[in-house]
Amino acid sequence: MSDLPIEVFDNPQPGRDYVIEHTSEEFTSVCPVTGHPDFGTIVLRYVADEKCIELKSLKIYYQGFRNRGIYYEAVTNTILDDLVAKSAPRWMEIETHWAGRGGISSVIKARHDG
Amino acid sequence: MSDLPIEVFDNPQPGRDYVIEHTSEEFTSVCPVTGHPDFGTIVLRYVADEKCIELKSLKIYYQGFRNRGIYYEAVTNTILDDLVAKSAPRWMEIETHWAGRGGISSVIKARHDG
Amino acid sequence: MSDLPIEVFDNPQPGRDYVIEHTSEEFTSVCPVTGHPDFGTIVLRYVADEKCIELKSLKIYYQGFRNRGIYYEAVTNTILDDLVAKSAPRWMEIETHWAGRGGISSVIKARHDG
Amino acid sequence: MSDLPIEVFDNPQPGRDYVIEHTSEEFTSVCPVTGHPDFGTIVLRYVADEKCIELKSLKIYYQGFRNRGIYYEAVTNTILDDLVAKSAPRWMEIETHWAGRGGISSVIKARHDG
Amino acid sequence: MSDLPIEVFDNPQPGRDYVIEHTSEEFTSVCPVTGHPDFGTIVLRYVADEKCIELKSLKIYYQGFRNRGIYYEAVTNTILDDLVAKSAPRWMEIETHWAGRGGISSVIKARHDG
Amino acid sequence: MSDLPIEVFDNPQPGRDYVIEHTSEEFTSVCPVTGHPDFGTIVLRYVADEKCIELKSLKIYYQGFRNRGIYYEAVTNTILDDLVAKSAPRWMEIETHWAGRGGISSVIKARHDG
Amino acid sequence: MSDLPIEVFDNPQPGRDYVIEHTSEEFTSVCPVTGHPDFGTIVLRYVADEKCIELKSLKIYYQGFRNRGIYYEAVTNTILDDLVAKSAPRWMEIETHWAGRGGISSVIKARHDG
Amino acid sequence: MSDLPIEVFDNPQPGRDYVIEHTSEEFTSVCPVTGHPDFGTIVLRYVADEKCIELKSLKIYYQGFRNRGIYYEAVTNTILDDLVAKSAPRWMEIETHWAGRGGISSVIKARHDG
Amino acid sequence: MSDLPIEVFDNPQPGRDYVIEHTSEEFTSVCPVTGHPDFGTIVLRYVADEKCIELKSLKIYYQGFRNRGIYYEAVTNTILDDLVAKSAPRWMEIETHWAGRGGISSVIKARHDG
Amino acid sequence: MSDLPIEVFDNPQPGRDYVIEHTSEEFTSVCPVTGHPDFGTIVLRYVADEKCIELKSLKIYYQGFRNRGIYYEAVTNTILDDLVAKSAPRWMEIETHWAGRGGISSVIKARHDG
Repeated sequence: MSDLPIEVFDNPQPGRDYVIEHTSEEFTSVCPVTGHPDFGTIVLRYVADEKCIELKSLKIYYQGFRNRGIYYEAVTNTILDDLVAKSAPRWMEIETHWAGRGGISSVIKARHDG
Repeated sequence: MSDLPIEVFDNPQPGRDYVIEHTSEEFTSVCPVTGHPDFGTIVLRYVADEKCIELKSLKIYYQGFRNRGIYYEAVTNTILDDLVAKSAPRWMEIETHWAGRGGISSVIKARHDG
Repeated sequence: MSDLPIEVFDNPQPGRDYVIEHTSEEFTSVCPVTGHPDFGTIVLRYVADEKCIELKSLKIYYQGFRNRGIYYEAVTNTILDDLVAKSAPRWMEIETHWAGRGGISSVIKARHDG
Repeated sequence: MSDLPIEVFDNPQPGRDYVIEHTSEEFTSVCPVTGHPDFGTIVLRYVADEKCIELKSLKIYYQGFRNRGIYYEAVTNTILDDLVAKSAPRWMEIETHWAGRGGISSVIKARHDG
Repeated sequence: MSDLPIEVFDNPQPGRDYVIEHTSEEFTSVCPVTGHPDFGTIVLRYVADEKCIELKSLKIYYQGFRNRGIYYEAVTNTILDDLVAKSAPRWMEIETHWAGRGGISSVIKARHDG
Repeated sequence: MSDLPIEVFDNPQPGRDYVIEHTSEEFTSVCPVTGHPDFGTIVLRYVADEKCIELKSLKIYYQGFRNRGIYYEAVTNTILDDLVAKSAPRWMEIETHWAGRGGISSVIKARHDG
Repeated sequence: MSDLPIEVFDNPQPGRDYVIEHTSEEFTSVCPVTGHPDFGTIVLRYVADEKCIELKSLKIYYQGFRNRGIYYEAVTNTILDDLVAKSAPRWMEIETHWAGRGGISSVIKARHDG
Repeated sequence: MSDLPIEVFDNPQPGRDYVIEHTSEEFTSVCPVTGHPDFGTIVLRYVADEKCIELKSLKIYYQGFRNRGIYYEAVTNTILDDLVAKSAPRWMEIETHWAGRGGISSVIKARHDG
Repeated sequence: MSDLPIEVFDNPQPGRDYVIEHTSEEFTSVCPVTGHPDFGTIVLRYVADEKCIELKSLKIYYQGFRNRGIYYEAVTNTILDDLVAKSAPRWMEIETHWAGRGGISSVIKARHDG
Repeated sequence: MSDLPIEVFDNPQPGRDYVIEHTSEEFTSVCPVTGHPDFGTIVLRYVADEKCIELKSLKIYYQGFRNRGIYYEAVTNTILDDLVAKSAPRWMEIETHWAGRGGISSVIKARHDG
């Protein structure tokens, strides 16, 4: 995990609990069964403790899934685990929204309480 | 029930309660009274325990209602009962939305607490 | 009241509390003061006990208001009282939405706890 | 036809061709076959010659269809014929939009060139 | 205050707590500083006790602000105070929404608990 | 073709060219390759000559595709050919809109000039 | 007319025909029959010749209708005539959109070719 | 801080807790890293104690960020701190919404309890 | 070009000019300058001559751009050239819509007349 | 003009007339009269001849208006003139959309035929 491209910076207001939300509408990974690409939107929502997640590195981190075969449920939990490990937030939530496959669209929501 | 086409796979993160939602906008069954087709959207929302529901088999399962005469209320409760029996979730909810008949549209929501 | 055209059928799943919602976008009655027609949407939401309300009879029942002079507040409470009397639900809610009159649109919401 | 409730007033600017459009979202008539009410929106669009159509009388005229059994196609052509006869416009167009019946919604558009 | 044009009528169902909401999208007053008109939407939401507010008189009452110089905050509280005084509701809420001034739009919400 | 369930009625205004449009949002057929159901919306637009198409029979006709394996392009041209043969319109147009398959949605538009 | 508050400024690019459009969503006048206020949106669209219309003075000009009793058709033609007289455009168009009265909303469109 | 351009006026109704919300869709600052402009919407929501925030001065205050290099998180907390210091509200909340950068849009929400 | 994965099938109705449109909302390629992924929607619109384009092969063909560095303008013209070469249509049009980069979104439209 | 930051690159398909459209929703300049910022959206639409406009340089060029006092009409014509001079297109169109000032929003459209 030490080689994840996620970078952090000092929380400018650690004395206050406030919510930060970043929504990426340009996420793509690959279905491990069919090999076809999956397209989704990733919503990250958290209350920082000492560290905030740097936006450009978050984008690079998300791009790392581009050619990886992985299920929706695993993408969601992996992102949550990685970002928690890197930024140690007071609270964090990942919501992934997936475009339809065979007429079925999906949403997965996972939360970490620090 | 043993012959339902629903398949499951191992929950990749059973240590965490997280919500999975699959929305199928392409559901159709038949009105048992008039014989005319009904068209609806089925929302499945659950927290998996040991098993997650496999998407392609869910689609096949839904297609099994295509030529079956059944009321809205029964569709909703049947889907909930079948999916609970097959996947033993911690919590599950089925919401069915039905296009208008004679100027009246309908929504049915049922929940199972594991 | 015995002559209301509302019909009921047996709740297919009385062992479970689940919510049924029927929305009629084609309701019309008459303003008792001006004699002009009023147009509205009626949302019925309930948890059935022993009996569910049959959709076609509900439509006929709503049509009975077509040429009746009656205020918004009275329409709402009358529908709630009639449907409660006929179906004895565990819980029921009526929401009426009314198109604008003189630039003012209205919503009335009444609830019955069984 | 002399007893139609449509009233007209002098065109304030007969020297200019300009378009007047009145949209009524609260039209209802009755299906001549089933006896069930139909709900629609009526769009009237015209270039007046000597006379403009008075709005309140237009509303009363539309209300006259409330309990009349008549097909969509006939409603559309009847309104166009009546309004042309009463106001002798340079050009007139009637568009009727009808809420869904059995999953089918309809639009009828008829035009008169003066 | 005795000369406010607000009229009331008997609550048809005083035995039940139900919510009445009237939304006027056509409110205008004048900015006391610049003299320019302000345009807003007024939402009135209440649970009646003995008396309901009559709609046409409400419209006339709102028209009384047309040429009056008054701040958003004062409009909101004045309407709430006037309507409470005239109708003695169990509960009442006024929400005013104001179109943008210099790129800033506003909402004011005040509540009275009877 | 003589056994198609399409019925017609006399055009109430054959002296005028006017457009009739019926939109069915509840069409389903089957993909001839995969056997999976396809879901679509069918827009029929025409200028009648002597005969108008009866709505209820149109609905029954559309339902005849429910379990038939047929491509989008063939559905569109077949409906156009059948309705032209049955109603001999002055002009007719069929537009079919198809929900996404593998992230690709489709529209097919065919026209007949009488 | 010389006292109309409309001001103009030199067209910065008279050598090119280009379209200028100003939309005011905050127009109000008074119905000459009922005395109730009317609310509308005014769209002004023109190709300037030597002079462009100054925005702030346009706003003041529109405010001059606030307490004036005048029909929709007259408002539209009056604004067009006044602005043409003051700015001598190559081409000008006024579109007025009016909120619903008794369930009927209206649009009036008039054009001047210079 | 004494030189902030924020002005206040007396709360017209200090005896009542009511919510005031001002939304500015025209905020811009500069990214401290890339030097490129950031565009956002600022929502201010508060319950005034003795003083209300004057709208025009709020606009001027926001304009002060136009050419300042500052992160999203810092903008949000700075605005909250400045407005709390100037107006001593009973409760205040700042929500900033930021247009996408590299396909990622953001929302920051901070709250002060007086 | 002979190795492009595009497949065709016989036009079921070559005697009629009709329009086929396929919209793929899940296209991604790579910016040749920055190496960052681009996300877009591709609209293909054509009138077939002898051959129609098979949908599944179209999807596979689009997936071939996934890791290719190529400009918007080149993607659009390349797709048009490839599909024209493979299907020899009577007329074809490609519209590509691209999500924002640095606050600028783009659309490219190219057409081939057979 | 030689110092404008606009860069061009070779049109990859000069043999075909195709339309390129870039929409920037993040434009801001300053009102020359009041000194307050103006916010707008700029749509550039053109058919390239030999040269296409490079996106990043376009963004930098637009940023050059950030602190410049200039009218809507002048912004529009200036951008059109600058981009024509730099890229010599076959055809070009600039549409600027401006957020409301005093309740009036504006659109300016200018076109150059090469």
